[in-house]
Amino acid sequence: MALTVDISISLDGYVAGPDPSLEDPLGVGGERLHEWAFAASSWQERHGHEGGEAGSDSDVIQEHVDAIGASIMGRKMYSSGTGPWEDDPKARGWWGDEPPFHHPVFVLTHHAREPLEMEGGTTFTFVTEGIEAALEQARAAAGGKDVHIAGGAEVSQQYLSAGLVDTLHVHVAPVLLGGGARLLDNLGDSPPALTVDRVVASPAVTHLRYRVAA
Amino acid sequence: MALTVDISISLDGYVAGPDPSLEDPLGVGGERLHEWAFAASSWQERHGHEGGEAGSDSDVIQEHVDAIGASIMGRKMYSSGTGPWEDDPKARGWWGDEPPFHHPVFVLTHHAREPLEMEGGTTFTFVTEGIEAALEQARAAAGGKDVHIAGGAEVSQQYLSAGLVDTLHVHVAPVLLGGGARLLDNLGDSPPALTVDRVVASPAVTHLRYRVAA
Repeated sequence: MALTVDISISLDGYVAGPDPSLEDPLGVGGERLHEWAFAASSWQERHGHEGGEAGSDSDVIQEHVDAIGASIMGRKMYSSGTGPWEDDPKARGWWGDEPPFHHPVFVLTHHAREPLEMEGGTTFTFVTEGIEAALEQARAAAGGKDVHIAGGAEVSQQYLSAGLVDTLHVHVAPVLLGGGARLLDNLGDSPPALTVDRVVASPAVTHLRYRVAA
Repeated sequence: MALTVDISISLDGYVAGPDPSLEDPLGVGGERLHEWAFAASSWQERHGHEGGEAGSDSDVIQEHVDAIGASIMGRKMYSSGTGPWEDDPKARGWWGDEPPFHHPVFVLTHHAREPLEMEGGTTFTFVTEGIEAALEQARAAAGGKDVHIAGGAEVSQQYLSAGLVDTLHVHVAPVLLGGGARLLDNLGDSPPALTVDRVVASPAVTHLRYRVAA
């Protein structure tokens, strides 16, 4: 029932590049953070495709998939930051008809709306009562598995600052973005204490997992 | 004859904490970045002490020591940023009578002064003609070994931006500083491309070594 932040990050600390748009929701260069995942067979399978490579990167993704029972994300991540959310309350975000989560997802927002049941087991539930309420609902829906903060950076920071995160797993891509959204900013005067839990290295990415003190 | 940046860094990207002072030259919390090194026998030996632990962290330091024939540093690192440099041209910085380099060190500065020969093989040579001149002098003095950018962040950034660095070796401490001097900022619109070269992990720190494209 751990709460985990698990996200790809550039060596200079960004989880998205500068100037995100509908065409480029991860910002300029942001796709490069995820090339290691796109190349992995477990990622391709999760997204309904075949192909990709087996190996340690694919194993790390599969391990994550197996451990997570529910996710939490911010409104911008749901709607890609520039989506039709504010104009059209029925907008489905940018995740398509069959999002890759395949489990309950809780979206932090200030705009109440009905839950959305998607194909393939993903449900979007919209939470207006704040991060602790979202965590409570996600834990109840996770079937005893872990809860994952899917992003973006601001939401991850809120949970880290509140001392609610148990595990921080950053996949450090060998990339310098030079701008964008930094994961580990705005953590206040007393950032949480970390302990190295595990390191898995491949030519494409370094998976650094830390335990986070409450 | 490679040029390397080799430095301890927090997971949030800082090489020094906020508010550096004479008493606290690494800034608030900055010493925590180097605890892994202080604990290593090769670091203690380099600094004229006994004790410390053998192991992979100590081996990484020894490997660095063996490979480096000359270092380059900024004026602030020489004088600790708040030292008596401007007032007293004979000031010896904060490195003591026997600095831990034991090889030629080239200090980037706008104030010309005579070289200083210290105990234990360290010489400080002051270079006013810019980063390329300092690199040329350091290469000539390195006896065929590598040249190391000892810091601080600004000097490392200047060499990285200029495309002069061959190897970037960051020792990621499991620490969040929340402020201070970031290593990988100000690299311009086209930050250099990186390739993962080697990862060494221990419970105290993760050593990430990258090749840097020119």
